[in-house]
Amino acid sequence: MKALVLFSGGLDSTTILAMAVEKYGKDEVLALSIRYGQKHEKEIKCAEDIVKYYDVQHIDYNANNLFKYSDSTLLKNNEEIPIGSYSKQQEGSEQPVSTYVPFRNGVFLSMAASIAFSYGCDTIYYGAHKDDATGEAYPDCSEIFNEHISKAIWYGSGEQVKVIAPFIDKTKADIVKAGLELNVPYEKTWSCYKGGDVPCGECGTCIDRINAFKANGKEDPLYDKVGK
Amino acid sequence: MKALVLFSGGLDSTTILAMAVEKYGKDEVLALSIRYGQKHEKEIKCAEDIVKYYDVQHIDYNANNLFKYSDSTLLKNNEEIPIGSYSKQQEGSEQPVSTYVPFRNGVFLSMAASIAFSYGCDTIYYGAHKDDATGEAYPDCSEIFNEHISKAIWYGSGEQVKVIAPFIDKTKADIVKAGLELNVPYEKTWSCYKGGDVPCGECGTCIDRINAFKANGKEDPLYDKVGK
Repeated sequence: MKALVLFSGGLDSTTILAMAVEKYGKDEVLALSIRYGQKHEKEIKCAEDIVKYYDVQHIDYNANNLFKYSDSTLLKNNEEIPIGSYSKQQEGSEQPVSTYVPFRNGVFLSMAASIAFSYGCDTIYYGAHKDDATGEAYPDCSEIFNEHISKAIWYGSGEQVKVIAPFIDKTKADIVKAGLELNVPYEKTWSCYKGGDVPCGECGTCIDRINAFKANGKEDPLYDKVGK
Repeated sequence: MKALVLFSGGLDSTTILAMAVEKYGKDEVLALSIRYGQKHEKEIKCAEDIVKYYDVQHIDYNANNLFKYSDSTLLKNNEEIPIGSYSKQQEGSEQPVSTYVPFRNGVFLSMAASIAFSYGCDTIYYGAHKDDATGEAYPDCSEIFNEHISKAIWYGSGEQVKVIAPFIDKTKADIVKAGLELNVPYEKTWSCYKGGDVPCGECGTCIDRINAFKANGKEDPLYDKVGK
């Protein structure tokens, strides 16, 4: 096995998965999904469909207790997720948003590093991008975080595992652009942070993906499908 | 809560716990122990005794499935743990030892960062020291790993959580020296990697702690106790 993709079933990581399959071939790609008590476990069902579509090996890792001490609104049993795009929520703020799950990407990348090492994968791909780091919305999506966690994983794995975040300095619109060129089946992806059957169209991730398609002159097929 | 101590119940982390209690007082210290499928779960029982002794809050976190993909000899159901001290095992080697659990310290520190953030702790203490990084024995105990994981946690937590590893450039003998000054109850600690009722006296951690006491002109009270 060559590459491990940190794979949520969302728009960003599905694009990354498509890129890894394009580069290495499906037999060399391992997709890792992590359940962490998120409200939107529906993304895991979408993840299952997408790994079948790409015919790659999948680890569906249950870490449900991991963040039970957090009051993040992204987690089950906590407060409602606020509406509106992240960049608007974050104007002038130096605090993480309420949907920030403490150091989630650090935990996920560390788990990914451990599993990558065990499978002999020398590369981890993940889909962080600069829109999510606006202000201090998600500090574990920032370039400086990525720089240091990548080095920590490189040295801490005995120089066996590297981290690649192709969109760390790019926008969600750039991700959609790359994915459209690879015919990513975006209608199968899930982004909405609420737990409903159809995307709410109001939360940060819903708005941001609609806008990312618009920036590419397209409609988000997910909203087409549900008639929004 | 002020400080989170990554606490295994072993010699190194018990010393660190004593230092944190000395510095902040017992009410400001949270001890985090992680079950990860290690052969020597006895250390968790010792950890429970020690947190009672210091009267600090304790999180006993079960992450038993986390490393199930690894063939590390430290884990249950895998091969025997080799005998002999790490530095001898590692002479001239550039590979991790067989007891290396892939990126364990990276995963543990990341979990610690998440929990520290949730509890409002601004500091994580952990007991890595330079003997464990000899050669490439445990690359996730090295200074360069520590430097980058610390920065990843600092920036990835929105500059809320820092990591302190007071012994990162010091030896196990230095740890024992500091602990003896604080009257650490070393007879309550557990280090042996084998699952027995008494320490084996032959594995890497047994030998290394015996030698660390010797370097301070003392006998390891654990071996005294079991008559070795």
